[in-house]
Amino acid sequence: MKKISVLDSTLRDGSQGEGISYSVQDKINIVKALDELGVTYIEAGNPGSNPKDMEFFAEAKKLKLQHSKLVAFGSTRRKGIKCAEDANLQSLLAAETDVVCIFGKTWDFQVTEIIHATLEENLEMIRETVAFLVENKKEVIFDAEHFFTGYAANSEYALKCLGAAVEGGASCLCLCETKGGEMPMQCYEATKTVVERFAKNGEVVVGVHTHNDTGLAVANSLMAVEAGAAHVQGVLLGFGERTGNANLSTIIADLQLKMDCNCIPEENMVKLTPICKRVAEITNIALDAGMPYVGGSAFAHKAGMHIDAVIKNPFAYEHITPETVGNERVFLMSEVAGKSMIVEKVQKFDSSLNKNSPVVAEIVKKVKELEHIGYQFEGADASFEILVRKAIGKYQPFFNLHYYKTSGEFPRFADDQSAFAQFKIDVDGKVVVSAGDGDGPVNALDVAIRNALEQFYPNVAQIHLTDYKVRVLDGKGATASRVRVLIESSDGESHWATMGVSSDIIEASYLALVDSFEYKLIKDLERKFGKLI
Amino acid sequence: MKKISVLDSTLRDGSQGEGISYSVQDKINIVKALDELGVTYIEAGNPGSNPKDMEFFAEAKKLKLQHSKLVAFGSTRRKGIKCAEDANLQSLLAAETDVVCIFGKTWDFQVTEIIHATLEENLEMIRETVAFLVENKKEVIFDAEHFFTGYAANSEYALKCLGAAVEGGASCLCLCETKGGEMPMQCYEATKTVVERFAKNGEVVVGVHTHNDTGLAVANSLMAVEAGAAHVQGVLLGFGERTGNANLSTIIADLQLKMDCNCIPEENMVKLTPICKRVAEITNIALDAGMPYVGGSAFAHKAGMHIDAVIKNPFAYEHITPETVGNERVFLMSEVAGKSMIVEKVQKFDSSLNKNSPVVAEIVKKVKELEHIGYQFEGADASFEILVRKAIGKYQPFFNLHYYKTSGEFPRFADDQSAFAQFKIDVDGKVVVSAGDGDGPVNALDVAIRNALEQFYPNVAQIHLTDYKVRVLDGKGATASRVRVLIESSDGESHWATMGVSSDIIEASYLALVDSFEYKLIKDLERKFGKLI
Repeated sequence: MKKISVLDSTLRDGSQGEGISYSVQDKINIVKALDELGVTYIEAGNPGSNPKDMEFFAEAKKLKLQHSKLVAFGSTRRKGIKCAEDANLQSLLAAETDVVCIFGKTWDFQVTEIIHATLEENLEMIRETVAFLVENKKEVIFDAEHFFTGYAANSEYALKCLGAAVEGGASCLCLCETKGGEMPMQCYEATKTVVERFAKNGEVVVGVHTHNDTGLAVANSLMAVEAGAAHVQGVLLGFGERTGNANLSTIIADLQLKMDCNCIPEENMVKLTPICKRVAEITNIALDAGMPYVGGSAFAHKAGMHIDAVIKNPFAYEHITPETVGNERVFLMSEVAGKSMIVEKVQKFDSSLNKNSPVVAEIVKKVKELEHIGYQFEGADASFEILVRKAIGKYQPFFNLHYYKTSGEFPRFADDQSAFAQFKIDVDGKVVVSAGDGDGPVNALDVAIRNALEQFYPNVAQIHLTDYKVRVLDGKGATASRVRVLIESSDGESHWATMGVSSDIIEASYLALVDSFEYKLIKDLERKFGKLI
Repeated sequence: MKKISVLDSTLRDGSQGEGISYSVQDKINIVKALDELGVTYIEAGNPGSNPKDMEFFAEAKKLKLQHSKLVAFGSTRRKGIKCAEDANLQSLLAAETDVVCIFGKTWDFQVTEIIHATLEENLEMIRETVAFLVENKKEVIFDAEHFFTGYAANSEYALKCLGAAVEGGASCLCLCETKGGEMPMQCYEATKTVVERFAKNGEVVVGVHTHNDTGLAVANSLMAVEAGAAHVQGVLLGFGERTGNANLSTIIADLQLKMDCNCIPEENMVKLTPICKRVAEITNIALDAGMPYVGGSAFAHKAGMHIDAVIKNPFAYEHITPETVGNERVFLMSEVAGKSMIVEKVQKFDSSLNKNSPVVAEIVKKVKELEHIGYQFEGADASFEILVRKAIGKYQPFFNLHYYKTSGEFPRFADDQSAFAQFKIDVDGKVVVSAGDGDGPVNALDVAIRNALEQFYPNVAQIHLTDYKVRVLDGKGATASRVRVLIESSDGESHWATMGVSSDIIEASYLALVDSFEYKLIKDLERKFGKLI
């Protein structure tokens, strides 16, 4: 089995995709997800060009990663200055990652026409930059920008650039298809030449980084591996500039299941689909239903096909069993695939439960129902826990809702206020009506709920919402479309995520808010009594 | 230049995709679009299994196609009966197409375990069915179902099946990757063997039909062509069962622009993008912005410094010029650095303006301010046009807002109703107060606005919202976060997109709704007066 190191660039190249933008907390959450999956490298940002990335690296240092190494990304030193004087290289060192990825020009045209350097100067820039980073104890991946175009235009010079990186001490030469457009056979031939020249005796690793402009990003990556590459860069869900980067979830599955390679720990393959879902959730995009291996339709069987036949002979209709990648057959709503994951979670509350327990079947049924209307529990651990607690009798409501009412108006009645809310509940028979105002009805309702709950549960005041996301589930319903609201909360010590779905955004927000408040109250009681309540 | 015949199966295999369904008129419109593009074959339905398809073929006979031949699709005769007695084959003849595509089993396992025939019986079924159709003057394409799996399992038998089709008189042997999952090299090797066995002297054409389960449908098609195939089947936009069929728009562009093949008339390549858009429209799906060659982002440039360089040297950053496939270069509005692109848009309204005009500086300033608070005009052409019109004095409000008020409540007052709205405006001094109720306050307000505006502008009734998206811009503000609402609208003829940003979701939605309604009214006036107003 051939070992392939994979580098995920969701947070760097992927974030160049239209409409993609991450907060520091989003980035931390994605790093955790990718580490759990077990990718070799996580390219997490460009500290030299983006001050927000520096904040992230400071935060990321505190993480204890199990499988992955963080990578900071930057370019070769600028023309005409020393490495030690280059502010971008200083930022790279300040990021304090063990691994650094450096891109440099390898297409002669780009050297002379775009950065206006001589061909020799560019070689020095590559050699010195890599050497400087190696002296500073970094493992260096050299991203050979526009390599395939450069190789086609002037193969001798393109190879010299790689040679300069090797002389500097790079451990990996990654061949980049920067503007897209290569064909698989070209990719194979060029990679083969590089492997023979630089990696025949394992001196360095050759890698590949492709884009999907010709619909071939995955194929070109695989062809490079066929030609001897042992490092692949991509983006877990394939988004990125233009037509996107190579889809790493597809590549990992192809390499591991079809090409006898090893990219991530074998036992983590079943996490591929759930982790893709989680990353989509954090990114606030819909996971494409048609995405190979991990999409919701990837193992959908059309009506009319005999379910039993598929169960008896999945080989007749499926190229792999969906469970291999943690996905499932669509028509088998209550199949064991999802069930075993649910059993695992339920056992945290009651270790006597197993997959034959009636209550587990009930939870599976409830989860399927809620997923059908738009819930997606991958991204909402706390709402899932509350659902399980309700099913197994480990839940008591903290209040009884009578009603809420909201009103909004324009023109606004104050600069930052446009809405009122009323909220009426009772707790053990004691009735409270509260009010709130705020910036929009959801904000006003949030205030009103807190005003009521804090009278009974002062620790509600510790909760602050750290993120609020809204996804319209079926835009075709226009202003009456169902929306999914995801709220992330914190009390300064722990973080949790909750979810609500409704065709009324206020109601969806209300459901997510109540789950968040109740989850906090449950956890505080557990802390107080030192046991699961 | 190698000639490749392409078969589009949007109307047959593509229509198996989730959520895809066509009326007879839709199918006629798609046939016209594909014929205009110039594909060789249009596989338009399965008259034996679907009575609606028969109605379509009756209708389609009246079309005078310029480039394409219609193909009816069906299977080999059933076991144990004569061809002349097989109802499905009779339906195929009744469709009266010149070309018929017949699928038959070529994987031994499927023969014995699924259709419970002997291996010899299956060969007879293939041979006799093809011969029967040839006797009836049909050009026959033989779709070798599960060919690649069958070839891997029992290559001798798989090849015998192809031999039977050749003996029957098939003119094309199309190798099908029915359950997906092949790797490019396997596809290449198997196709090469078939080409050598059956097509060395041009006796028959070898074709390929792939699915995207491993993200390799395009690559496998191209590899088959490398191995000697000269016929490719796919679906123009790549949709279909599970992960979809091979994307024919990508394949056509790859073959024609990168592999020196000819699939469609050279002069029609510029129609590729517009025809893909039209087919997406008829299918009622959004054309994936990241789709190679034809997607809205396929030639989008984001980085500010890139823009000037791309204009000077498109070759430096683009693998082909977008005009080749009828697409266009997009400089994303988010990088306002490029004043030149704003000038270009402003000149549509007033050609005397240039980048030194004070009003252009004013627009650039306004766009920057709005982007700073969260607008992103790359997705909202109509809102951008209204902004430009306001700046250059080509805008007059259609009404004067006094106020709107909304209220929402829980429990709901009806199953699908939870909110009310009031809306007060005047138009030329005539005051109207209207009301609406609905599913959430935004839906109620939408209704109230329409109720008021339709009294003055009846054509507002033609507007329907085709998509509604919400993006929280900085989740850290929690329930008071700023949100961006994007609305896509249509009046059945044209489509436009508008945007609103506010920390109050109702206000953001209101702004996008008003832009949408006003844009429609402006365009109707332009149509009426036949000039830019």
